Amino acid sequence: MCACQLSGLLDVACFLSETTIYEETGLCYIAAILSAEEGKSTYMQLFHTLRELRAFLDSCAGRRIGFVPTMGNLHAGHCQLVSQAKNLADIVVVSIFVNPLQFGANEDFGSYPRTLQADCDQLRAVGADVVFAPAVEEMYPDFDGQDLHQQVIVQPPPLADILCGASRPGHFVGVATVVTKLFHMVRPHVAVFGKKDYQQLMVIRTLVRQLNFDIDIVGGDTRREVSGLAMSSRNGYLTAEQKNQAAQLYAQLQQVRSALQAGRRDYAAICKESISALKDQGWQVDYVDIRTQKDLSVPSTNQTELVILVAAKLGKTRLIDNCEVSL
Amino acid sequence: MCACQLSGLLDVACFLSETTIYEETGLCYIAAILSAEEGKSTYMQLFHTLRELRAFLDSCAGRRIGFVPTMGNLHAGHCQLVSQAKNLADIVVVSIFVNPLQFGANEDFGSYPRTLQADCDQLRAVGADVVFAPAVEEMYPDFDGQDLHQQVIVQPPPLADILCGASRPGHFVGVATVVTKLFHMVRPHVAVFGKKDYQQLMVIRTLVRQLNFDIDIVGGDTRREVSGLAMSSRNGYLTAEQKNQAAQLYAQLQQVRSALQAGRRDYAAICKESISALKDQGWQVDYVDIRTQKDLSVPSTNQTELVILVAAKLGKTRLIDNCEVSL
Repeated sequence: MCACQLSGLLDVACFLSETTIYEETGLCYIAAILSAEEGKSTYMQLFHTLRELRAFLDSCAGRRIGFVPTMGNLHAGHCQLVSQAKNLADIVVVSIFVNPLQFGANEDFGSYPRTLQADCDQLRAVGADVVFAPAVEEMYPDFDGQDLHQQVIVQPPPLADILCGASRPGHFVGVATVVTKLFHMVRPHVAVFGKKDYQQLMVIRTLVRQLNFDIDIVGGDTRREVSGLAMSSRNGYLTAEQKNQAAQLYAQLQQVRSALQAGRRDYAAICKESISALKDQGWQVDYVDIRTQKDLSVPSTNQTELVILVAAKLGKTRLIDNCEVSL
Repeated sequence: MCACQLSGLLDVACFLSETTIYEETGLCYIAAILSAEEGKSTYMQLFHTLRELRAFLDSCAGRRIGFVPTMGNLHAGHCQLVSQAKNLADIVVVSIFVNPLQFGANEDFGSYPRTLQADCDQLRAVGADVVFAPAVEEMYPDFDGQDLHQQVIVQPPPLADILCGASRPGHFVGVATVVTKLFHMVRPHVAVFGKKDYQQLMVIRTLVRQLNFDIDIVGGDTRREVSGLAMSSRNGYLTAEQKNQAAQLYAQLQQVRSALQAGRRDYAAICKESISALKDQGWQVDYVDIRTQKDLSVPSTNQTELVILVAAKLGKTRLIDNCEVSL
């Protein structure tokens, strides 16, 4: 293909990427390769298949790949992770995949919001280079339309069995397995995970170390509403009234932090008070707990690097949050 | 560093690689990079650390990497796998690691022969480019000298629970986990596994597909002694007399194959006869079984792609063998 033909295709590709819905096409793909060769990625690419993703990534050999895995329905918290990844890598890939394996039978897999168009708009604005939004059969090659038939499983470390793992059996097995798959597909040099899912971040750190992945895992700070409420896709389930109330979760974390900073070390009693306060405010509390930042173990009274974690339901919506404390 | 300095170092490195025991040195490493840049690998490199392996592999960007994982104590069967890998790749990495995680408490981990010097001699002769012989702490980053502390585990598919998996609980968990680690370290494009470990090959094929590794898995034919005995590191445990007798295992496989080729489909009866014959010859038989090549399931009478598998002990030495049959 001569340069003139390529240039013509590139014009069309530019036009398409301005006006249409980021669907992957041969033309956009050519545009992506060209921009990658120029040393920058001008057009955000949307790939649904691994074949396309691999072809693109092969054209980026030698560049540092950053990765932000998501389940979509993006908010400013996700965008901050993408910005963080952009500072750490040449090319940032964001995956959007609502992973059936990490949802329990009675959880919100079916109703989890799928908002690909709006997600792509946000990601484009924040400068993501590639969106990888695979179908279930792309992630689970033995999926038959009904059952995933995923027999090979990545078993996470025991720290996945406590806290959210205790209330959501199988959740972190699903997370560990799908993140392993995504790492094999994207082959990032660095991956950014939000600290909002604190336990998940620790599961991933352990997984990467113990499976000898050569990937830097970076934690991204939690982004909050003005009220203090941690941004979360699941906030979209809340009514306006509930959303106001939901800020109580962060307020409790701050209260516990203040108690620790004031010198209290009766962890169990502090958490019990906090659980009571939330219950009085109408929450169904799963846990309020104080753990070590190192490995989520129960801290001794002289440990200084702690994290307070909370999970509770407001109506049918389960929310989580946490707060690191260095004493 | 000027070209002249490099050239001088290269001379020394050549000298070292001719006369010494393939120990990794900064000099040899420079020689390796130089030869990789020239488009060929003249000197076989021995690396004990992941850091060195990665640095070398980074210098091979763009080349097709072939991989043969072994536990060392190499014989002509392994060499054949390396030759096969050389035909499929530009650079062939052979790992030598006796993996504690895949040995049961009462198995031969401690006594498994470690013969690194002889292994390197053979691998050099057959043209391997890199030998990766890591220490336990390199493979298991949380190893404390006593316990591996490997909490993240790759759970293999159910086909790992039958046959050898039934007699060696945890064996294929150890295999799946260490192979996943090695794949993350070596990042091969193609990996060759011997068909002698038929069930292992099927576990690895399923693992690669279901964890979305981008690696071609190639099976290597079993190499046999003139007597028919499948080559195996564990043959070294046999006395001369036992080694003669051990050929009975392959003879039984051939008998079963003949029965199938003659039209018999009473699989259970055929296997029972074979087990009896081996017992009469003094073997402790673990199993003789006829399975489908596809997934090691019990075949119906109209299936044509079968495999006969055997595991039995001669004295204290457990041997396995198998034979594919296409009817």
